[in-house]
Amino acid sequence: MSEKSSKVSTESYKGVRDFYPEDMAIQNYIFGVWKKTVESFGYSEYGASVLEYADLYKAKSGEEIVNSQTYTFMDKGDREVSLRPEMTPTVARMIAAKLKEFAFPLRWYSIPNLFRYENPQRGRMREHWQLNVDIFGVKNLNAEVEAIAIASKIMTNFGFKEADFEIRVNSRKIINYILNDLFALSPEDSYKVAKLIDRKDKMQREEFESAVSEIITKRNLEFIELINSNNFEEFVSKLPENVQEHEGVLEVKNLLEKLEELGITNTVFAQDLMRGFDYYTGIVFEIFDKNPKNKRAVFGGGRYDELLAIFGKDVVPAVGFGMGDIVIHDMLETYNLLPKIEPAAKLHLAVFNEDAIGFAQDLAQKIRETSVKVTIDYSYRKIGDQIKYADKNKIPYVICIGEEEVKTGKMKLKELATGKETEVTEDTVGYIIK
Amino acid sequence: MSEKSSKVSTESYKGVRDFYPEDMAIQNYIFGVWKKTVESFGYSEYGASVLEYADLYKAKSGEEIVNSQTYTFMDKGDREVSLRPEMTPTVARMIAAKLKEFAFPLRWYSIPNLFRYENPQRGRMREHWQLNVDIFGVKNLNAEVEAIAIASKIMTNFGFKEADFEIRVNSRKIINYILNDLFALSPEDSYKVAKLIDRKDKMQREEFESAVSEIITKRNLEFIELINSNNFEEFVSKLPENVQEHEGVLEVKNLLEKLEELGITNTVFAQDLMRGFDYYTGIVFEIFDKNPKNKRAVFGGGRYDELLAIFGKDVVPAVGFGMGDIVIHDMLETYNLLPKIEPAAKLHLAVFNEDAIGFAQDLAQKIRETSVKVTIDYSYRKIGDQIKYADKNKIPYVICIGEEEVKTGKMKLKELATGKETEVTEDTVGYIIK
Repeated sequence: MSEKSSKVSTESYKGVRDFYPEDMAIQNYIFGVWKKTVESFGYSEYGASVLEYADLYKAKSGEEIVNSQTYTFMDKGDREVSLRPEMTPTVARMIAAKLKEFAFPLRWYSIPNLFRYENPQRGRMREHWQLNVDIFGVKNLNAEVEAIAIASKIMTNFGFKEADFEIRVNSRKIINYILNDLFALSPEDSYKVAKLIDRKDKMQREEFESAVSEIITKRNLEFIELINSNNFEEFVSKLPENVQEHEGVLEVKNLLEKLEELGITNTVFAQDLMRGFDYYTGIVFEIFDKNPKNKRAVFGGGRYDELLAIFGKDVVPAVGFGMGDIVIHDMLETYNLLPKIEPAAKLHLAVFNEDAIGFAQDLAQKIRETSVKVTIDYSYRKIGDQIKYADKNKIPYVICIGEEEVKTGKMKLKELATGKETEVTEDTVGYIIK
Repeated sequence: MSEKSSKVSTESYKGVRDFYPEDMAIQNYIFGVWKKTVESFGYSEYGASVLEYADLYKAKSGEEIVNSQTYTFMDKGDREVSLRPEMTPTVARMIAAKLKEFAFPLRWYSIPNLFRYENPQRGRMREHWQLNVDIFGVKNLNAEVEAIAIASKIMTNFGFKEADFEIRVNSRKIINYILNDLFALSPEDSYKVAKLIDRKDKMQREEFESAVSEIITKRNLEFIELINSNNFEEFVSKLPENVQEHEGVLEVKNLLEKLEELGITNTVFAQDLMRGFDYYTGIVFEIFDKNPKNKRAVFGGGRYDELLAIFGKDVVPAVGFGMGDIVIHDMLETYNLLPKIEPAAKLHLAVFNEDAIGFAQDLAQKIRETSVKVTIDYSYRKIGDQIKYADKNKIPYVICIGEEEVKTGKMKLKELATGKETEVTEDTVGYIIK
């Protein structure tokens, strides 16, 4: 059973991460900032299993994408199961299932792990965790304002300054108007151009323009000029005069004004912002890292009012965003904003020999009642080695317990950083450390 | 795309759970008690992916069990992958991978979700979450004492009394001595009887005894009498005199004494306690619910010093236990110890019309700075309906904001439970609520 000849690998599965305590502490810090911020806006946490029926994703993404980009397999009961690649279909499913029971609006958040089948690279792993924040049941623009205010607050709570990032906004209604009405593309061509716009930032300028010109064969220079506009006013001025008050244009204008009123001024209109997912129906937005060495979208979201239709339900207005752990971890690192890790214990009890262990265990129990984290050394090795262990584990205080301490109950609390010693008893030690 | 004819099911996958906010709040409460307790003993959290190479489990459990009882599938790169059925192989893998880097002992915990392929029934789902607590690098019995002290402290922190549960202990060394030496069974017969003992509580007395007698054909009455002993003294007295000081007997005796010294007195020796897993090597223990209506093992653990051998590593002494979320949730319910759920917000801002919304958003931002959770009503419906919404969501306070409030900055804070109104300003409201 324990033959060394048939060794098992100590590597984790390809594209996923092990979280050793120091990694987990940072992960917990990120989750903690997320939770604290969204809960201050009155959002409730929900959760679900990572396993979902594959049909949940096929309805929107199509069979082919689900099969090629997700972990999907047959269970022993011949059910086709996926490891969830995103959380939005799950939350839509949960809301559709109990639609009649809720008092809308609902403010919900979750921090699920998500899987996608792709080759791992920096910032893109096969598994990541993602904060999902959604408000359901608000038709007006206040939902978008709230979602963007939360996104912005998360960034400042992490320690980023408004100058470090910008908030890009657009409306799918504008894009749809341009493609379907202004340039009168067929649904297929419209979809192709939309996909090209979504990938625009990852393409060379010429490559993008020639690909677009292959689909939009008439007035293509006009289209390219429009999609390359530098700001909102310039963009609007290029639209036909009778549509400068188009619904999509007005909601972007209104949104930028409302955000400015709230003191959020690092916003820009981005006429080429798509945010991938097919289900967005109105405003889309993203947080963009302005660091010259690392310009990129960090996270984003938007309005998706029609997703519950896949369950045969009526429209439920919905605005939400998702924020991944890996991309924010990288950004915190770049800006030198990762937190200092707290040690697992504040006090280590070094114990001379077995006669002193019962005393140490009793003492530890009492000190823990004062919310001080305590570890006990069970090795009976040299006291110097026990202190070295505390030091290596960054535990700041040590008490050595031997015959004298057991007899008198008087002990010396040693602060390792300074070497300073303070006389304590079991009643005082917890409070002195705090 | 949104045709209602091809409806997607709103059901979750078979045997897993959706966590609506009220379910998640209870789950978070359980996780919170776990975390707070184990961290007070200086344990650090670690984590890993739910995906592991299937080989990790085959080494100990065998190909057949892994294939029939776990979720195992081939990925697109022809790697055989499992959804982890337990956490111990993962933590052993992580420690084996960085063995040279650690200063032992390590005190680690995690709260992973685990999957097993079986038909769902009360208390047994296909996915559950499990607290895993392990101490690595302590050879002596103090590790077992600490693990049991933590387990006991978790129970009392949940609000259970010592009289509600008992802590059953045994040593695999005693079982091994009885089967291999005292009754001189072959390894195969020994394994079969061990499995029978493990299932003893789920069998009729006669069924167990006749099954044992088929394997132990000589002196089987003697064996049955021994395994049915009522207490530690009676059990020891039935052993041959020259082995009454057997290593396993002494460690159980020593452990019970040490726990009593620590004030943990609800312990019993259970000579028929096995705790399933093949990898235990010494003391095993379990927490047992004494409720007459629901007598059963709640959770347990033990010493497993040899698990790192599967990675070709030397012995690393290890003691740990696992505690599932479903079984503790059921027990909390039985004892009426589930917590009262806190509302997601403390204050709801009811807003008369769009002219007041900017004021409300600013006010909410300021109040959130005082750590009070605030929601805003964006519906512009009748104020009475906005207050009803707050009431339905158990939000205790409401402020109504209209023209007058925007003009003067003076507002009335209404406590819904009493109807009491207090005049407040943006500077005082947060502190009054707290």
